[in-house]
Amino acid sequence: MLNLRIPGPTPCPSPVLQAQTKPMINHRGKEFGEIITRVTAKLKELFQTQGDLLLLTASGTGAMETAVVNTLSPEDKVLALTNGVFGERFAQIAKIFGANVRRLDFPWGKAIDPAAVRAALASDVAIKAVLVVHNETSTGVTNDLETISAMVKEFEKLLLVDAISSIGAIALPVDSWRCDMVASAAQKGWMTPPGLAMVSVSHQAWEAIDQARMPRFYWDLTKAKNFLERAQTPWTPAVSTFYALDKALELMAQEGLSAIVARHERVGALTRKGVKELGLSLFAEEAFASNTVTAVAAPVGVEVGKLLRILREDYGVVLSGGQQSLEGKIFRIGHLGYIYEADIEEVLKALEKALTRVGFSGAKEARIPSA
Amino acid sequence: MLNLRIPGPTPCPSPVLQAQTKPMINHRGKEFGEIITRVTAKLKELFQTQGDLLLLTASGTGAMETAVVNTLSPEDKVLALTNGVFGERFAQIAKIFGANVRRLDFPWGKAIDPAAVRAALASDVAIKAVLVVHNETSTGVTNDLETISAMVKEFEKLLLVDAISSIGAIALPVDSWRCDMVASAAQKGWMTPPGLAMVSVSHQAWEAIDQARMPRFYWDLTKAKNFLERAQTPWTPAVSTFYALDKALELMAQEGLSAIVARHERVGALTRKGVKELGLSLFAEEAFASNTVTAVAAPVGVEVGKLLRILREDYGVVLSGGQQSLEGKIFRIGHLGYIYEADIEEVLKALEKALTRVGFSGAKEARIPSA
Repeated sequence: MLNLRIPGPTPCPSPVLQAQTKPMINHRGKEFGEIITRVTAKLKELFQTQGDLLLLTASGTGAMETAVVNTLSPEDKVLALTNGVFGERFAQIAKIFGANVRRLDFPWGKAIDPAAVRAALASDVAIKAVLVVHNETSTGVTNDLETISAMVKEFEKLLLVDAISSIGAIALPVDSWRCDMVASAAQKGWMTPPGLAMVSVSHQAWEAIDQARMPRFYWDLTKAKNFLERAQTPWTPAVSTFYALDKALELMAQEGLSAIVARHERVGALTRKGVKELGLSLFAEEAFASNTVTAVAAPVGVEVGKLLRILREDYGVVLSGGQQSLEGKIFRIGHLGYIYEADIEEVLKALEKALTRVGFSGAKEARIPSA
Repeated sequence: MLNLRIPGPTPCPSPVLQAQTKPMINHRGKEFGEIITRVTAKLKELFQTQGDLLLLTASGTGAMETAVVNTLSPEDKVLALTNGVFGERFAQIAKIFGANVRRLDFPWGKAIDPAAVRAALASDVAIKAVLVVHNETSTGVTNDLETISAMVKEFEKLLLVDAISSIGAIALPVDSWRCDMVASAAQKGWMTPPGLAMVSVSHQAWEAIDQARMPRFYWDLTKAKNFLERAQTPWTPAVSTFYALDKALELMAQEGLSAIVARHERVGALTRKGVKELGLSLFAEEAFASNTVTAVAAPVGVEVGKLLRILREDYGVVLSGGQQSLEGKIFRIGHLGYIYEADIEEVLKALEKALTRVGFSGAKEARIPSA
């Protein structure tokens, strides 16, 4: 079996995959009602929220669109913080639906500077909402969401968060960090196949939803909330994926959130240490390096496509390349969800061998012995 | 195991459920590329189209929204044909996204009258597109799409079709009937768990897409087509559901489309005959009664909720009630996808016993002996 180490879909434990084989049921019946009630309650615990938690049959991008179209009206001014592909995507969604998007761009690989966010908000009272990506999967940077939120809430703005590749693996206490909407997706930290996305909704977000006039039907959270009160979804849900998520959340509850977060911290640290020991450089500013995905700068002269192909075909290790302007310049190791130290040790061993084969001489020369 | 006879999710053959347990793979890799290429080709055969066929991670309503937002601009005039819940839904989506919706309403349980469609189109040159539901799941009526299409194409209008509960089970040759967009979803005739929706796109639809200005991001078909050229999807797809659909389409290819359609015709006829023999009345106009879902008028004095509960709890047969204004007035038997005569015989036997228990005296008295 391949060692799949991309930032999603992530590997699923066998009981999670097996859970999908249960027969179909009536999505308006009692049994599905019990599942959605249990899944919602468990997700609220892991989101650390007393607010609402709604599930959508979609991938994570659908949850980002949901956050935008439910809380905003055309012409609303939003501040979009960008430092990678997913920050760009969030800004683009808002723009397409008619928001007046003010961008605050940071270099890819660097973290968002909360002071700059504060300055932007101080200079423009018209801003209604701030869009931010917690964990920028494209660059391996985890933004300082807690501090950014403090800035946003000093000005009482709405805070919409893409936490697709963070929450459930990296600490994100939704209520104490006062995030109004937080989007995630099953195929990330949740160890579940893709097909379900989730959004948390604060009281302040519901107030915005009541006023918001962007068109929405499939993503309509008012409908989703009304149906959830009857333990249903407005549209036919991905039933098998619900079975899988239910099982995955049971496994996560057994481990406990703090143990899960600590495991991701250990695995993230091990990945960064190992990569540096091979003589490679991290792409992300290390103080903000993500514990769910590590972006590695491609060494001079190493063709990323060839390296990834050798890793996959000869060593069974599947990594991701860079996206958009980072294509060919970085590669990425996903380490979220169902991930342990041994998985990363296997990746590092394969990487060492594959690097030698693509002519990377720094692999041995620059290697610093492990402590 | 329950005999699940609702109009979706429909039961899945065991190999389809089992296919979901394959490990996750890179959705940007070769193996997923082979799957989406194969699934798309097989769907095009069953849609009988040389046009494009695109898959979305969503339920069927997402595919309806996709058809609207990709081909229309705000203020565009559309003619929405309605004779049930799903026709209403299609009209509502168009209205929410700013279309100028002219409605042509027909009584629920009756078929759409193509002559009335022709008259409406003749009287209003401003109409750009026609929205129609092929098989109205809420009432058990299959509209005469072939004739309606002839009317629509006489005026060269765009024809957007909800075929969610028909195509793959009821004949719908997309190209020869000149349907511009046809929406369906995995959990209907396709014998697959919910989580994937599909839309076919004609050449005329692409011309409309190029001009259309309704906002779209997740549903953007231009992106979907561009990614399909690389054998990918723009956003992370429901990988397990792709595994399942791949297997289900293999089974469908073994049976062959004409045999599948004939099986649904036999099962539909058996259902209607059996229901009438029990002394019950069909809700739908019989000449247009659907071969995938049968709506039965609730006999006077019979509480539908109680009847369905007895069927489910004591006989293991799961049927659906009526939706919206039909709640309590009808119940519905789904017979699409993985369905054979024996399944319906079991439903009819259970129904006979349960009807007696809820005090329906017509069950024996009105019974006409089987031929």
